[in-house]
Amino acid sequence: MRSSISNTIHSFSKLTKEQKIEWLVANYLENKKDTTNLLKSYWHTDLSKQELHDGFSENSISNFYLPFGIAPNFVVNKKTYAIPMVTEESSVVASASKTAKFWSSRGGFKASVLSTQKIGQVHFMYNGKHEDLVQYFISKKEELIRCTDDITKNMRSRGGGITEIELIDNTKKLENYFQLHVSFETVDSMGANFINSCLEQIAKTFASSDIKIVMSILSNHVPNCIARAEVCCRAEDLYKENSIFYAEKFIQAVKIAQVNTYRAVTHNKGIMNGVDAVVIATGNDFRSVEASAHAYASKDGCYKSLSDATIEHGVFKFWLEIPLAIGTVGGLTSLHPLSKISLDILGNPNAKELMQIIAAAGLAQNFAAIRALTTTGIQKGHMKLHLSNIIKSFGANSDHEKMLTKYFENKTISHSEVAKVYEELLNNN
Amino acid sequence: MRSSISNTIHSFSKLTKEQKIEWLVANYLENKKDTTNLLKSYWHTDLSKQELHDGFSENSISNFYLPFGIAPNFVVNKKTYAIPMVTEESSVVASASKTAKFWSSRGGFKASVLSTQKIGQVHFMYNGKHEDLVQYFISKKEELIRCTDDITKNMRSRGGGITEIELIDNTKKLENYFQLHVSFETVDSMGANFINSCLEQIAKTFASSDIKIVMSILSNHVPNCIARAEVCCRAEDLYKENSIFYAEKFIQAVKIAQVNTYRAVTHNKGIMNGVDAVVIATGNDFRSVEASAHAYASKDGCYKSLSDATIEHGVFKFWLEIPLAIGTVGGLTSLHPLSKISLDILGNPNAKELMQIIAAAGLAQNFAAIRALTTTGIQKGHMKLHLSNIIKSFGANSDHEKMLTKYFENKTISHSEVAKVYEELLNNN
Repeated sequence: MRSSISNTIHSFSKLTKEQKIEWLVANYLENKKDTTNLLKSYWHTDLSKQELHDGFSENSISNFYLPFGIAPNFVVNKKTYAIPMVTEESSVVASASKTAKFWSSRGGFKASVLSTQKIGQVHFMYNGKHEDLVQYFISKKEELIRCTDDITKNMRSRGGGITEIELIDNTKKLENYFQLHVSFETVDSMGANFINSCLEQIAKTFASSDIKIVMSILSNHVPNCIARAEVCCRAEDLYKENSIFYAEKFIQAVKIAQVNTYRAVTHNKGIMNGVDAVVIATGNDFRSVEASAHAYASKDGCYKSLSDATIEHGVFKFWLEIPLAIGTVGGLTSLHPLSKISLDILGNPNAKELMQIIAAAGLAQNFAAIRALTTTGIQKGHMKLHLSNIIKSFGANSDHEKMLTKYFENKTISHSEVAKVYEELLNNN
Repeated sequence: MRSSISNTIHSFSKLTKEQKIEWLVANYLENKKDTTNLLKSYWHTDLSKQELHDGFSENSISNFYLPFGIAPNFVVNKKTYAIPMVTEESSVVASASKTAKFWSSRGGFKASVLSTQKIGQVHFMYNGKHEDLVQYFISKKEELIRCTDDITKNMRSRGGGITEIELIDNTKKLENYFQLHVSFETVDSMGANFINSCLEQIAKTFASSDIKIVMSILSNHVPNCIARAEVCCRAEDLYKENSIFYAEKFIQAVKIAQVNTYRAVTHNKGIMNGVDAVVIATGNDFRSVEASAHAYASKDGCYKSLSDATIEHGVFKFWLEIPLAIGTVGGLTSLHPLSKISLDILGNPNAKELMQIIAAAGLAQNFAAIRALTTTGIQKGHMKLHLSNIIKSFGANSDHEKMLTKYFENKTISHSEVAKVYEELLNNN
């Protein structure tokens, strides 16, 4: 029994990692020694490596493993990549690989970067005359850029920096609410710290007795930081049999995701299965990419598909446009040993090239999902992989594994059903 | 130089893990032996554990580490939790812990589950008379439920199953497009496989020569599967100094996220920093949670904040409502050894309790971000943690680390600036 006041601890963060585990196991895990050993068994054997990982976040007591996999044969803009993917979901890497191979003999993925604008905002309240504010902004604008010179110096030398500052009147939506809407080019870095440092400096310079700064922070809404990926082939080359029929069904499935929100959310979730796997593998922040992608999907007032498809003059075309504010320098990209390897595997791309690779991975995932859904259904492949996980969770030996796999070949798979059959197997042995 | 046709491989998935690494290192990593060793150094030392992890996804060659941390002192509905969080972003666990502690002496988090409805869809095309379809649906409805009896048997015994099937006419949006909109209760499981298996069976039973099934799949849009978390206290108890002033500024920041999409996306991204960390730690699928949260944020036609705040009669109140289709059984939850530990640490909650914990973690993160943004700014805390990571990336010794930390105490931190000062340090030694 836990009472309402027990288990509270002061200065937990100041404990050593061992002490943290000790406290946790004593207070929440009934002093199970096994758990202590299990948590420690996930530490890296090289102490300096482990210390590096411990430093990435706070109160870290172990490492959470996510499978680091490879999807080979991705031809993007005529270059062949083996794409590192980090995902816990079975079938994501398998279908990415299968799709990559499929398109590699049909011209591969054509990808491009449409724009790379990042956004930051200084939000403030002002209840004086609007004209005075506009005049003040105009008179200050040069200084607002100059005041960040120290911060932007290196970025400018790499071709980036602040590209625009606008004053925006939001008073119709919220009384006295204005903002400075600042545009940035951050070249190969995601740029969050850079943007926030600039904004805080701009806010300091802009503030006055009449201008009350509420907050200064980058925006994860980046509708002008867009990568595009596309595949195309003759509609009759898309399937082995009944190609035109299935190609048209594929188009229907995409059009449904354009008009139906319930479907669109799942459709885009499938895209993000591919996108996030590469985002994580390369040390980027998947929450920011998720937020920007879904906000972009809703930008026209109705949440819809990020991808689209057509058949025109017998040519099947399928494409994706997605905001991707990611980086190949800074953050964890070169700090996390496996992110560094990921970027090495990709040939150390710049941010634009990585945006294109990620967009291709997202489109591939979307293609695989729609193809499966509109032909055999998604469960067949899914459950085959899932069955293997269920069997493993029972600790079944390889003979039993084979028997169970055989037994469920053409049957509906559920955890309980597999458990039942496995129990029967054990009882009959 | 990579040519356009090299590096393509057949049957990569059939190679052993060692062979996969060998191929990768030979073709993409200039045969660097160091990389091979590094990838292998991330394997679990217990072979059976490693094989378990390899089985979660395909083409897995190593484990990607994400820090497994603990945020203690979370009082949710009067119970004190230590919440396991998996995140690569520095400051997330620190601010969750700080916020948890803060609210633990102010009544903690009050959380509840408003609804638990999951959704699945059978999408189909029909170009006959609408009335005939409606009649056919009515005559078939009982059979559509009964045909899944084998699949739903166990779920029904746990109190779940199919709760409703509706026929929806979407022909105004897309010619001939209808759907069966199926509602589910999946109790403690996320239920994706269960829902998809039911839908495929329903589609088979419903299909006719006039009804062309396009696809059958669950929806990640779950606007009726909602958890709510709330904190409240007297506005004057919110800050040590100028409490009312800062409490009102806090409210302004939330109201801004209600009316401004550029801010709302980042505001919600901050919520998801907390949400995803617990979602991953407990073996749930963060892409589905991300998709449903952001789609929910855009459901009124304008993307806005998931949280809201008020001050009424001197009482500050801050709350969050968020869709959370997660589970505590099935999937990876008990399969991944660290997910299993996470659920143990949380006292093996059912799905509803976990929804409440996750909502509290999301609200905590949101609170911490807004509090920082509207007082000292976000960069101060962020950069302190970031500085430590930058210094570590140089492999600086502890004397140099102390000197650099001291030097940058009140200065603007950028990677290049730290690099410059570190170089000077080295040259002067």
